[in-house]
Amino acid sequence: MTTTVRAWAAPAAGAPLEATTIVRRDLRPDDIRIQIAYAGICHSDIHTVRGEWGAKTYPITPGHEIAGTVVEVGSAVSKFKVGDRAGVGCMVDSCGECEACVDGEEQYCTGHLTWTYASEYPDGEITQGGYSQEIVVTERFALRIPESIPFENAAPLLCAGVTTYSPLEHWGIGPGSKVAVVGLGGLGHMGVQIAHAMGAEVTVLSQTTSKAADSTKFGAVAHVATADRAVFRELRESFDFILNTVSAGINLGDYLGLLRRNGAMVNVGMPTDSLPVKLPTLIGRRRSLSGSNIGGIAQTQRMLDFCAEHGIAAQVEVISADRINEAYDRVVNSDVRYRFVIDTATL
Amino acid sequence: MTTTVRAWAAPAAGAPLEATTIVRRDLRPDDIRIQIAYAGICHSDIHTVRGEWGAKTYPITPGHEIAGTVVEVGSAVSKFKVGDRAGVGCMVDSCGECEACVDGEEQYCTGHLTWTYASEYPDGEITQGGYSQEIVVTERFALRIPESIPFENAAPLLCAGVTTYSPLEHWGIGPGSKVAVVGLGGLGHMGVQIAHAMGAEVTVLSQTTSKAADSTKFGAVAHVATADRAVFRELRESFDFILNTVSAGINLGDYLGLLRRNGAMVNVGMPTDSLPVKLPTLIGRRRSLSGSNIGGIAQTQRMLDFCAEHGIAAQVEVISADRINEAYDRVVNSDVRYRFVIDTATL
Repeated sequence: MTTTVRAWAAPAAGAPLEATTIVRRDLRPDDIRIQIAYAGICHSDIHTVRGEWGAKTYPITPGHEIAGTVVEVGSAVSKFKVGDRAGVGCMVDSCGECEACVDGEEQYCTGHLTWTYASEYPDGEITQGGYSQEIVVTERFALRIPESIPFENAAPLLCAGVTTYSPLEHWGIGPGSKVAVVGLGGLGHMGVQIAHAMGAEVTVLSQTTSKAADSTKFGAVAHVATADRAVFRELRESFDFILNTVSAGINLGDYLGLLRRNGAMVNVGMPTDSLPVKLPTLIGRRRSLSGSNIGGIAQTQRMLDFCAEHGIAAQVEVISADRINEAYDRVVNSDVRYRFVIDTATL
Repeated sequence: MTTTVRAWAAPAAGAPLEATTIVRRDLRPDDIRIQIAYAGICHSDIHTVRGEWGAKTYPITPGHEIAGTVVEVGSAVSKFKVGDRAGVGCMVDSCGECEACVDGEEQYCTGHLTWTYASEYPDGEITQGGYSQEIVVTERFALRIPESIPFENAAPLLCAGVTTYSPLEHWGIGPGSKVAVVGLGGLGHMGVQIAHAMGAEVTVLSQTTSKAADSTKFGAVAHVATADRAVFRELRESFDFILNTVSAGINLGDYLGLLRRNGAMVNVGMPTDSLPVKLPTLIGRRRSLSGSNIGGIAQTQRMLDFCAEHGIAAQVEVISADRINEAYDRVVNSDVRYRFVIDTATL
C-alpha cells in the first residue's frame, strides 16, 4: 500500500509552487522511509522547476538536500534502523555496474542514473524530491547524518556541501594549498569552510565587499571584490586552485590568469552559455579548466563526517513552506545567507 | 673575440628569409659552442618571423630544433667535451631561482626566461636561432643527443618531441591509457610514437584518411577522419587523454565529449583566437581542458633517452637553405611528412 504525504510542487514550468500531496512507494526490502525534518532550497531546484534545464514531467516536487529520521526499514536493510538520522542528496539510484559506479562515483554513472526529483527510475517511477513529509529510498543512497549537526544545518550539506568537498578532495587540497573560492553563496560558503578545514589558505573572490565579514568568519584570509578589475592584475599567479561556484558566465581568462603553474580552476556552477577561453592562457602555465559534479555516496558520507569533525555546517535561514516562492526569487537575487531550508512541519 | 657565422634570417616581419651572417658571443666559462648539423623548421618559427606572435626585433634567425657537435667548451664546463653530440631546444637561459626553475621546469620560469631566438638575455643580447652554422649556449641548456639517433632525426625532438612527451609523461600515460592524438603533423607524429612507446592505445584523429598508413606505422591502432562528424558520436567517452597538436581553432566541445570520466584534453598548439567551451561538458564527467608548453631541460633529456631506447625519432625531409621559404609555405599548408630539417652545410 503506497503512502500519500503532503508536499509542495510546481504544477507547470514557471508556475509558482503550491501545496499538494504526492505518493511514496511501499518499501522494498532494501528501502528505508525517512520522515523529512528539513529540505534545503538549491538553485538547481529553481532552474529545474522553471524549465530552464530542459523539459520535465510536471508536477515537480523539488528538493535534494534532505535531512530527517528513519521511521521504517525494509526487510533486508542493514545500514539503518528506525530512529536513525538520515539524509538524501541529489541521487536515489544508479546502475551499480558501470565503471563509475564500481569506483563509487555514482554521480558519473554512465548506465541509468536516477536523480532525486524530476527523474525516472528504470521501472518508470518518476521521482519527487524533498519538499515533502517523507521519502522512500534504497539504503544505498541514504547517508548517516552525524549527531552533532542539527538537521537544518545538515540538509544543505547533501548538495552544497558535497559539491564543494568533492573537487577539494579530488584535487588534493590541504596544508600549503592556496585556494580561491569564487562567489560566496550557498555553495561558496561551504567551499570556504571546507577548504579552510582542510588546511588551505582561502581567498574569497566576490563581486563586492558586502560579505567580507562572513568570509573571515568562514575561515578565509582575504575577501577581494572583483568589481575592481585591478585585482586580476594584482593577484596574477596567486592560487593553486580556484573553485568557481558561480552559475552565471564569468570571464574565464581573468580567473585562469590567477592560477600558478599546474593550477586548476574547477567549476561547479552550470552556466548554460558557452564561455570563451584562450588556450595560450592554459599552455603558458600548464593550467587546467575543469568541472566537477556533486560527489559519490561514499564521498558524501566522508564529507558529512568531516564537517562534524571540524564543527562546520551550512548557515541557513529556516522558512515555512508558504515562503518557498518568495525564497526562490531571493535565491535568484543572491539574497540569502546562505541557504534557505524549509521546515517540513509547515508543508 | 666574437665569431661571425653564416645564417639565414628574416630581415623584417613577413619578408622572406635570406642568407646573412650573425655574430656569436665568445664563450663564457659555462658555455659550449655547437657546430650545428641540422636545424628543424617548426611552425612557431613561421609565426614568429611573420610577426604573428607580436612585435620582434629584426633580423631574426629562427630555429629551435638544433642538433650538432660540440667544438669548443668553456673553462668551467663539466657536462660536455669537444666532439660530443649536443642539441639545443626552445630555451637558452632562465632565472634559475623561481619555483619552476627549482623544480626543473624552466619552460614555466616566472623570472627571466630567454628563448632560443627573437628573445633577450638579461644583459640585452638578442638571441638568434639554429638556422646558422654555430650556436653558443650555456651547458645547462644543452642536451646530449644519443648516438643511435641521426642528427637530422634528432633535431625535431628538441621541440616537437618534448612538446608531446611532456604532457604524456606529466599526465601519467602508460599501459591501459586510451589516447587520441589530434592532428598528424610535426608534433602529432611524435606524439603518436611516444604515446605508443609508453604503452598507450593510440587513435589518430585527423581531418582525412590521407595519412592513415603512417598512423599505423607510428603505432596507432586507429586513424579516424573527423571530416565525418558522426565520429564524434561514435567515439563519445572513448579516451582518457586527448593530445591536441593542431594550432588552428577546433570545436572543443566535439573533442571534450570524446573524453571519459576524469579525462583530460591537453593542447600544445597555439590558436590565437578564443574558443568557446561549455562548462557542463566538463562538469558532467569531471573532464579537464589543459595546455602544456614544451618541457624542462631534464625532461627533454629523458625524452631523448626514451626515444633512443624505443628506436623512435622524427621522420624528416632534409632541405637545403635555399628552400626554406618554400618549406614555410608547405608547412602552413600541412604539406610535409613530417618535419623539414635544414642541412646547415648549405647555409
